[in-house]
Amino acid sequence: MEMKGDDFTPIQGVGEFGLIDRMHTVLGETADDEVICGIGDDAAVIRKSDGMYQVVTVDALIEGVHFERSIMPMRHLGFKSIAVNVSDVAAMNARPRYAVISVAVPHSISVEMMESLYSGIRQACDAYGLTMVGGDTTAARQLSLSVTVIGEVEERQVVFRRGASPGDLACVSGDLGSAYAGLKVLIKERIAMQEAVGFEPDLERFDYVVGRQLTPKPRMDLVNTWEAAGFKPRALIDVSDGLSSEIHHVCRQSGCGALLRRDAFPLHEQTERVATEFEDDPVSFALYGGEDYELLFAARPDDFALIDDGSVTVIGIFTEPDEGVRMQGEEGEFVSISPDGFQHFDG
Amino acid sequence: MEMKGDDFTPIQGVGEFGLIDRMHTVLGETADDEVICGIGDDAAVIRKSDGMYQVVTVDALIEGVHFERSIMPMRHLGFKSIAVNVSDVAAMNARPRYAVISVAVPHSISVEMMESLYSGIRQACDAYGLTMVGGDTTAARQLSLSVTVIGEVEERQVVFRRGASPGDLACVSGDLGSAYAGLKVLIKERIAMQEAVGFEPDLERFDYVVGRQLTPKPRMDLVNTWEAAGFKPRALIDVSDGLSSEIHHVCRQSGCGALLRRDAFPLHEQTERVATEFEDDPVSFALYGGEDYELLFAARPDDFALIDDGSVTVIGIFTEPDEGVRMQGEEGEFVSISPDGFQHFDG
Repeated sequence: MEMKGDDFTPIQGVGEFGLIDRMHTVLGETADDEVICGIGDDAAVIRKSDGMYQVVTVDALIEGVHFERSIMPMRHLGFKSIAVNVSDVAAMNARPRYAVISVAVPHSISVEMMESLYSGIRQACDAYGLTMVGGDTTAARQLSLSVTVIGEVEERQVVFRRGASPGDLACVSGDLGSAYAGLKVLIKERIAMQEAVGFEPDLERFDYVVGRQLTPKPRMDLVNTWEAAGFKPRALIDVSDGLSSEIHHVCRQSGCGALLRRDAFPLHEQTERVATEFEDDPVSFALYGGEDYELLFAARPDDFALIDDGSVTVIGIFTEPDEGVRMQGEEGEFVSISPDGFQHFDG
Repeated sequence: MEMKGDDFTPIQGVGEFGLIDRMHTVLGETADDEVICGIGDDAAVIRKSDGMYQVVTVDALIEGVHFERSIMPMRHLGFKSIAVNVSDVAAMNARPRYAVISVAVPHSISVEMMESLYSGIRQACDAYGLTMVGGDTTAARQLSLSVTVIGEVEERQVVFRRGASPGDLACVSGDLGSAYAGLKVLIKERIAMQEAVGFEPDLERFDYVVGRQLTPKPRMDLVNTWEAAGFKPRALIDVSDGLSSEIHHVCRQSGCGALLRRDAFPLHEQTERVATEFEDDPVSFALYGGEDYELLFAARPDDFALIDDGSVTVIGIFTEPDEGVRMQGEEGEFVSISPDGFQHFDG
C-alpha cells in the first residue's frame, strides 16, 4: 500500500548511520531507568541486579551482503555468527552468557548443511562460554542468521564508547586489515576455481589472513587478562567496520579528536604481502576493510604499562575535539580520516 | 564449498519441527544450571535473581514468507514484529521488558517507509511496556525483521507448555481463525485492486478479521487479569501456528492426550461469513490458519470459575496420552487432529 511517490528518500541518501539516527528519533528516548545505555553503543546495557549489568547485542549475517556461500563454509558461518556478537560483548568489557538465533533458510540448503552450520555455532558457544537458549527457523530466499547475545558485567567494569579524554593513548589489539586481506584471497581463489576444472586452491600461503576472514576470534582473552591485570579501558569499541569508522564513533561519543600514526598500525606480514600482490595499500585495508574484530580503546598513559605485553599497540593519541580525526603519514604530513568504514548501503 | 552431493536431505523432508529437533541434537544439552528452560517452549527461561526469571524469545517476519508488502502497510508490519514476540512472552505468563531488532532492508524501501515501520514498532512498544534497546540494520534482497524480546516473571508465576494433566480443561482465549480469514480477504481485495484501476477496497465489512491479520493483539491483558484473579494456568502456549499444532505441542510436552469439541471452538461472526463466501470451513481456519496470537491453556476444573468472564472458552479436555489428540464432531464422531499447523517449509 506504500508506493514510491514524492516522499521516497533512498536509504543510500542518508547512509547506514544516518538511518540509525532517524530511527532513533522515531523511537524516542526511553523512560525506563533500568536502561543504562540504549541504542548507540556496541551493546545495550540494562541493570540486572545489585552491582551487575546485563548487555544485549544483535548482529545479522546475510547472504550476498556479509558473506557468499561459495567462499564461506557453513560451519565457519555458524561460528562467525556467534563470534561477531561476542565481539560486541567484549567491546563493553563484558562476558557473553546466552544466545538466541533466528535463521532464514532457502530451499537450496540441506539438513546436512544446517547441521554443519549448527556445529559451528556450538563450537563458538563452547569456545566463549555461551548457551544457545532459543531460536526461530523460517524459509526465505536468502540465507540469513540473526543472533542476539546476552552478556553480563559488573557495574564498575563496564566500558562505553564515550569516556576517552584528550591525552589518552589510542590503542588497538592484534593486527588490522588481515580479515579484508583474507577476503581478497578467497575471492581470487574462487574465480580461479571457477575458471579451471580440478583447480586446487592454494590457501596455505595465506592461511593466517584467510582464517581471520572465516573464523574471527573476538578478544574475550583480553577482557579476562585486563581484569586480572587491574586494567580498565576509558573507552572501548570493537573493530568490525574498519578503524576509520570506529575511531570516529569513539571520538564523537567522547567529545574528542584523535591523531593516529600511520606507521604505528599493526599489520601482519601476510596482510602486507596480499596488499603488494593486489597493488593496494595495507593501511587502507586497516582503515576501511573491517571484520577484524579487534578492540580499539583509550588508555591512560600511566595505565598502559599494565597491559604492555605485545598483545596491544599504541597507534596514536586522543586530542581536543577541534583537531578532528587525523592521521600522520610517513613523511610527517597530516591527513583527515573520513568516517566511512565499510557501509552496507553504499553503491 | 558445500555442494549438493549424496548427502542432500531437503528441509521439507524433515519439516520445520523435525529440523528444530535435529539442530537441538547438534547443540546438545546445556550445562548451565541458570537455564531453567532452553529450546522447546515459547521462550527460554533463565534465572535472573532471587525469585525472578528472565524470558527470552526471538521471532522473524520475512517478506514473501510471513507477509507481502502489497497487503501489509509498513506501520502494521512494525507493530506486528513486536506483537508476535510479546505473545511468546505472554505464553510464559511473563511480562515483556526489552527488545532488540535486526532489520534487513532492500533498496526498494525508502527512509520514509522505514520511519513508518519504526512508528509501528514504537506504538507496540508503548502498548506493551517494552523499551527498544538496540538494533542492527543491513541491506538485503528481502525485507526481514528479526526481533528478540526479553521479559520477566516471578519464579512462582512462570508457566510452561508441559504441565497439563488428564482431566484439566483445554481452554482458549478470544476467537480462532479470524487472522486467517483476514488474510483471505486482503489477498482477494489485492487481486481485485490489481485488476481494476481506481478500485477502492471494501474492507469495512470485514474490519474485525482484517485487523486481526494486520494488528494482532497479544493477550498481555489476560496475564494481568489472571494474576489479579489468583489464577495460574497449568500449561500455556500461544496460538501462532494454528490450534492443531499448538494442542499437539502441549500434549506432547505434558504427556497427555486431548479431546476437543468442534462445536465449542470460538469463531467470530465475520470469520464464519468469510468461510461461507470462500466455500470453506471456519473450523479449518481455526485449526490450521495460525496467527491468532490467542492463548491456549490447561486449567484445573475448580480454577476455571476464577476467570470465567467471557474472555476464555473451554474447547475440550486433556485426556490420558493413549487417547491421542482428537476432535468430536457435531454428529458425535471422533476424528484425529493432525499435528500440522502452518509450516513454512511446506510445499
